[in-house]
Amino acid sequence: MSGERPVDPIEQLVGLLAKLPGLGRRSARRAALRMLMQPERVMLPLAGALQAAAAAVQPCRVCGNLDARNPCGICRDPQRDHGLICVVEGVSELWALERAHAHRGLYHVLGGTLSALGGVGPDDLAVQPLLARIDGAEPKVEEVILALPATVDGATTAHYLSDRLAGSGVRVTRLAQGVPMGGALDVLDEGTLAAALKARRSF
Amino acid sequence: MSGERPVDPIEQLVGLLAKLPGLGRRSARRAALRMLMQPERVMLPLAGALQAAAAAVQPCRVCGNLDARNPCGICRDPQRDHGLICVVEGVSELWALERAHAHRGLYHVLGGTLSALGGVGPDDLAVQPLLARIDGAEPKVEEVILALPATVDGATTAHYLSDRLAGSGVRVTRLAQGVPMGGALDVLDEGTLAAALKARRSF
Repeated sequence: MSGERPVDPIEQLVGLLAKLPGLGRRSARRAALRMLMQPERVMLPLAGALQAAAAAVQPCRVCGNLDARNPCGICRDPQRDHGLICVVEGVSELWALERAHAHRGLYHVLGGTLSALGGVGPDDLAVQPLLARIDGAEPKVEEVILALPATVDGATTAHYLSDRLAGSGVRVTRLAQGVPMGGALDVLDEGTLAAALKARRSF
Repeated sequence: MSGERPVDPIEQLVGLLAKLPGLGRRSARRAALRMLMQPERVMLPLAGALQAAAAAVQPCRVCGNLDARNPCGICRDPQRDHGLICVVEGVSELWALERAHAHRGLYHVLGGTLSALGGVGPDDLAVQPLLARIDGAEPKVEEVILALPATVDGATTAHYLSDRLAGSGVRVTRLAQGVPMGGALDVLDEGTLAAALKARRSF
């Protein structure tokens, strides 16, 4: 732990691990130690996986999902309903819905929600790409599900998108009530998510 | 998340992160996502730090501590008392004592404790290296502190080492047992309370 050299590799590793969400400095030390005891088993594979993911993974140019392919595996899946688009705040929410196995259509990642306080306007989100995507879609998009958080900003964003989509001929729905107020989608249990998706109503 | 290819880089990354102690699958996904959003900031530095640590860090041939130098930074520190050796179960305990800034001597990592149930005998631990180290030490080792866990196996190991060191002319001590800092008496176990009462000191 001590040393006159400016960069100690253990300290450096612990410092970087401690930056990960969910790992404090104490857990980062435990994780570093566990790995250092058997570097071949986790340490070098993890280094390789990080480099491979950093090199290969990028945002899907169609929906904004993160994937090693572009367009992503979901967008290029012929088994999914390409006439059904689920609008989510971020990739984290997309992943949560995928784990619920409840959505058979495609996605659109907004990259946030409108926020008057946070200074987030429509141009800061992927709103225009969504409209353009619906406009030129083949086959036609039949329905857009607004799977946005049950917060003031989420509701504002849903209303805004509903207004923008009015007259496009697309049915706009939202997740059913049942999502707890203030609840973040990516920490909800799969059962609640699946139920809310199934009971979606017209906006 | 879906894909026909056998190894998805995101899934692989999440799987390896989930193996770290303190990170479940859910936190591993959050960590992976956070990194994927800005690969340059944490992802590639972390990959580099893992490789650097795996290449540089090894057990100290004198005390068993993990360090980029061998002997380790503690063993080669002339400011520390080389006549005082603190025996610990593992590197994790060594690090904990270093954080307490309470030990000014050296260490010896046993690599575990004796365990009749676990089938761990003296030959499975760094007992012989400890005896050899004390035997040939220059300057002479004056005191060995047994900083072993307050468990049955820890006590058994301490007794065993104390026996082996009898007649070596080295003073053998152990950590005090008692009420931990900030510990409320009514939630402490009876064993700790009894030990603290028995070892009471003048105020």
